[in-house]
Amino acid sequence: MTGTTARAGARPVAPARGRLRPLAQGEVEITGGFWGQRQEVNATATLEHCQEWMERVGWIGNFRAAVEGRVATDRRGREFSDSDVYKLVEAMAWEVGRTGDPAVDERLRDLVATIAAAQEDDGYLGTKFGRPGQGPRWSDPEWGHELYCIGHLVQAAVARARTSDDTALLDIARRAADHVCEVFGPGGAPGIDGHPEIEPALVELARLSGEQRYLEMAAEFVERRGHQRLADIEFGRAYFQDDVPVREATVLRGHAVRALYLAAGAVDVAVETGDPDLLAAIERQWEATVARRTYLTGGMGSHHQDESFGDDHVLPPDRAYCETCAGVASVMLSWRLLLATGNPRYADLAERTLFNVVATSPAPDGRAFYYVNTLHQRRPGVAAPLDRETPRAGSSLRAPWFSVSCCPTNVARTLASLDTYLATVDDDGLQLHQYADARISTRLPDGRPVGVEVATTYPDGGRVTVRIAETADAPWTLTLRVPSWGAGATVTDGDGRRAAGPGSVSVHRRFAVGEEIQLDLPVGPRFTEPDPRIDAVRGCVAVERGPLVLCVESTDLPDGRHVDDVRVDPDRPPRDDGGVTAAGVLVEQADGEWPYRPSGRPSPAAEPAAIPLAPYHSWATRGPSTMRIWLPTV
Amino acid sequence: MTGTTARAGARPVAPARGRLRPLAQGEVEITGGFWGQRQEVNATATLEHCQEWMERVGWIGNFRAAVEGRVATDRRGREFSDSDVYKLVEAMAWEVGRTGDPAVDERLRDLVATIAAAQEDDGYLGTKFGRPGQGPRWSDPEWGHELYCIGHLVQAAVARARTSDDTALLDIARRAADHVCEVFGPGGAPGIDGHPEIEPALVELARLSGEQRYLEMAAEFVERRGHQRLADIEFGRAYFQDDVPVREATVLRGHAVRALYLAAGAVDVAVETGDPDLLAAIERQWEATVARRTYLTGGMGSHHQDESFGDDHVLPPDRAYCETCAGVASVMLSWRLLLATGNPRYADLAERTLFNVVATSPAPDGRAFYYVNTLHQRRPGVAAPLDRETPRAGSSLRAPWFSVSCCPTNVARTLASLDTYLATVDDDGLQLHQYADARISTRLPDGRPVGVEVATTYPDGGRVTVRIAETADAPWTLTLRVPSWGAGATVTDGDGRRAAGPGSVSVHRRFAVGEEIQLDLPVGPRFTEPDPRIDAVRGCVAVERGPLVLCVESTDLPDGRHVDDVRVDPDRPPRDDGGVTAAGVLVEQADGEWPYRPSGRPSPAAEPAAIPLAPYHSWATRGPSTMRIWLPTV
Repeated sequence: MTGTTARAGARPVAPARGRLRPLAQGEVEITGGFWGQRQEVNATATLEHCQEWMERVGWIGNFRAAVEGRVATDRRGREFSDSDVYKLVEAMAWEVGRTGDPAVDERLRDLVATIAAAQEDDGYLGTKFGRPGQGPRWSDPEWGHELYCIGHLVQAAVARARTSDDTALLDIARRAADHVCEVFGPGGAPGIDGHPEIEPALVELARLSGEQRYLEMAAEFVERRGHQRLADIEFGRAYFQDDVPVREATVLRGHAVRALYLAAGAVDVAVETGDPDLLAAIERQWEATVARRTYLTGGMGSHHQDESFGDDHVLPPDRAYCETCAGVASVMLSWRLLLATGNPRYADLAERTLFNVVATSPAPDGRAFYYVNTLHQRRPGVAAPLDRETPRAGSSLRAPWFSVSCCPTNVARTLASLDTYLATVDDDGLQLHQYADARISTRLPDGRPVGVEVATTYPDGGRVTVRIAETADAPWTLTLRVPSWGAGATVTDGDGRRAAGPGSVSVHRRFAVGEEIQLDLPVGPRFTEPDPRIDAVRGCVAVERGPLVLCVESTDLPDGRHVDDVRVDPDRPPRDDGGVTAAGVLVEQADGEWPYRPSGRPSPAAEPAAIPLAPYHSWATRGPSTMRIWLPTV
Repeated sequence: MTGTTARAGARPVAPARGRLRPLAQGEVEITGGFWGQRQEVNATATLEHCQEWMERVGWIGNFRAAVEGRVATDRRGREFSDSDVYKLVEAMAWEVGRTGDPAVDERLRDLVATIAAAQEDDGYLGTKFGRPGQGPRWSDPEWGHELYCIGHLVQAAVARARTSDDTALLDIARRAADHVCEVFGPGGAPGIDGHPEIEPALVELARLSGEQRYLEMAAEFVERRGHQRLADIEFGRAYFQDDVPVREATVLRGHAVRALYLAAGAVDVAVETGDPDLLAAIERQWEATVARRTYLTGGMGSHHQDESFGDDHVLPPDRAYCETCAGVASVMLSWRLLLATGNPRYADLAERTLFNVVATSPAPDGRAFYYVNTLHQRRPGVAAPLDRETPRAGSSLRAPWFSVSCCPTNVARTLASLDTYLATVDDDGLQLHQYADARISTRLPDGRPVGVEVATTYPDGGRVTVRIAETADAPWTLTLRVPSWGAGATVTDGDGRRAAGPGSVSVHRRFAVGEEIQLDLPVGPRFTEPDPRIDAVRGCVAVERGPLVLCVESTDLPDGRHVDDVRVDPDRPPRDDGGVTAAGVLVEQADGEWPYRPSGRPSPAAEPAAIPLAPYHSWATRGPSTMRIWLPTV
């Protein structure tokens, strides 16, 4: 049923201006392959799984308890649990847009009815505050998450409105957003929320509705932050980015998801209000964060304590936090910056993060998830309980649900809307940013139809074949991203084969239907070494293959060997003989009484070995194991 | 007034049996030098500082509020704040024992009167629970800290009873301990406290009073732990060592202070009850913890999140926690194991921890402290506020007080009683474990007097001169510890000079008063390299000098250079020409767009430099700086 329910504009982000114009569901469709398979699992397992769990743990029931007057005593879950119900609804909305699945549509309508009943007369919506026996509304800006929850409600409503004629959720969200504007707008309270999220949500609602005051409210929330309005908590005000004004900050800091949602909202505000200074500030922060505070996987967040960015170059693989939601949020930010600027570096980071963070979180069956995405597992994980919530950052295998369970629904909404992140258009033509089997059919701004079919085995194979499916009788430009690791790539068209350097390659011509353009990316395995200031991985290399970060997992080593016994020879490039291996040794290691000794000790005994490597995203899918990405050199 | 008020037995730990017998204040006295100077600052500044702050932040006032019936509304501080008042009283008691200072004695009596008034009729004492408007007593075993606080009360009372004729505090503590035995003893509640501490306290009260039931209660608390009586919190039950029974555990784990206090209590129980299996279990846990979970400084605890031990070999210098209290607790544990077994390895670790953790925490003026003792400071610290509490783990300079302020009073009680950790006796003679200017005068178990005067500039100089001051006309053995780094040490006595290998060296003879025995320890600077499984410091060396860990501080580098620019040449040993330097270079480092690159990049530009090194314990005493202990090699 593809395309039958998706409406014009069925996309998460719809800027009024910017270098590139995003496409909508229906205009671009993933038809199979790596991501198609994950979308299928998301549709057939994850959505239902999330709904079952939120019924089981009472987070959906909280809305019923509110209606029935017993929420003060019966409420379950953390203060932000409403948001996960909204994120599930958003995921369902994109799924309905993607496939038109009537069963999902039906479940979505039921959930919306449950939510609707809990909305109060003045538009306020939230199950944690304001009812008899509860704390007053807006009484806990640091930790209450009230605006955060309403932000997710609004994003869900925008998704629904862009993928369906059903306006029930949009009506709820607009009444809630109107209430927010009354409380916090001109003449109202000067506050902000400890967790940014309302900012991008209100901009998108303004884009959908044309109502300028939602944009003004979002802009005001962005400007208010950084002026020490929130309390100085133990983690410091940087935790919620209330330390430095958004325009003055030089790098992302504090809680990673908070920082990234805020930055995404600031880009939205900058684009809609035409504010190049604000946009440039976020570009600079992105640059500094990517250069100094980002893991090889694209993961962000080095601290377990406060789920936050560390100082520059503090990127310990064994204590990486790399929250799945931070990966989702990073893709959201990079996508907005790509649309605004057209710079392919943003699509590069999005690709890295999608393949190595977002794809790592869900289990193959779509019913268990990583919340934290470590780069080094020293003890085999412990199987998570199937019948109760797991602590979010436990050193476990993927878990079905968490006591803080923001990640599963965030993965779900991302996968359900992923088609829209593949391609854009501008006045000159079509740009492909992410490679997957896909069909694209759209029009350039001047109305000319363009359509292509993309066929690829990427990321396993490096060949991407683009077949022209629709074209007008005039030249246009097809632009293909060449990842930063893609030195040696070639593009082949009717004029022959030529080199295509990292960045992007364009083919400008009068295309004919059926014509094929072929991009060949060098996806063979390669060694990567870290900036010497990243102390935690000094003396190590990683192996990458195309956009995939690889890892060594104990499952693939001889019996009883730990991944920490591995040493690789950096002078002998890794090979791919149907499976990737690196030449190296396995060392024998033993405890002394004290782990520090006079320098110059002899090397430990070692036996030569071909070290097997596998995609990081699939680690721990074969039972408990130890794992590492960064490998010490011999 | 030394010796006039100190009573026989004025020592923190007084086991009924064991390989070595501890000495008391009065029998052993530090007379100057490194530790003498710190004891003086503790006496003249820190004790008063702690009392002033606990008045200011209301923790002493809580006892008054309890008496006046307003504690439910007026109580300030965390649930465990009573314990810091008790630790201050303990520090004062040792100070009175050490010097007989009447002003301290007077302030102590006032504090005890304040505490006494808040004790309830049934013996219960605590300002957080049980009064109208408060939660019921014992209602929060995981976080309530009720037994923890009473444990510190008991330790303070033991200290007071061993250093004064004033029994007021002992009376209070015994009534509280009796109440604990009634509530948790035979036929009572089966609970334990989330924070161990009552265990060593009750054993010491049994040693003091001869009351067996305190020992039985302590033994019962030790045995109860590890059977999942406490709730499964987000950090898991290992956080409070309730995951595995004490006898079955193989390594220390979870919250470091909790783990170490529990282990100390278990040693006390094992010694008093004659339980070699329990003692052996703790020895094994100590061995594994020291071999795999201890920093070069002796610091313990790798996680900020839960103040806990990390997995084996997870020892990041830049995210080291190394809580000062964990250093104190580690010294407590090692001291108990030394007394029980005589193994000098325990004194080795205690020395390392005293010089590099306990001595690092307080500022030179004794009025500011580190709570967390990082091994690598990447950004210059921020000056702590002087007028309010600082978060405990902020990346600041030393702070006057913390919202959780367990460390300053823990340092205070340790310094005030430090004399007693220097030496022991056994049937054959006298053992010196720690080196400081000191006078020792005691009797061997058979009644023979032995006395020595120790003169040394240690740790700056390596010569320790022991002059015989008292001796009977019969041979005895003087045993001197030779630290594990002391290969090449020599001892010189009337028979000449001879090598003294690491461990200990003994001189057995009929000593004469005035005779001198001289130990020469090789305290020149040396490189130390880490176990290759400690990923976080791969490719680095540290410089040590005698028992001191050294560091590079930006204060000593050319203008504007960061410690992360330092590289040292491991083939050229560090030198001491009045100041320690290592040969190396300063490198130029610059950001790229992405911090990971194809392997084989050229080395950055570098200029040769003599890298200056200084004792870690004195870092950040000259203003904000960056600092590192582990230095990458060229």
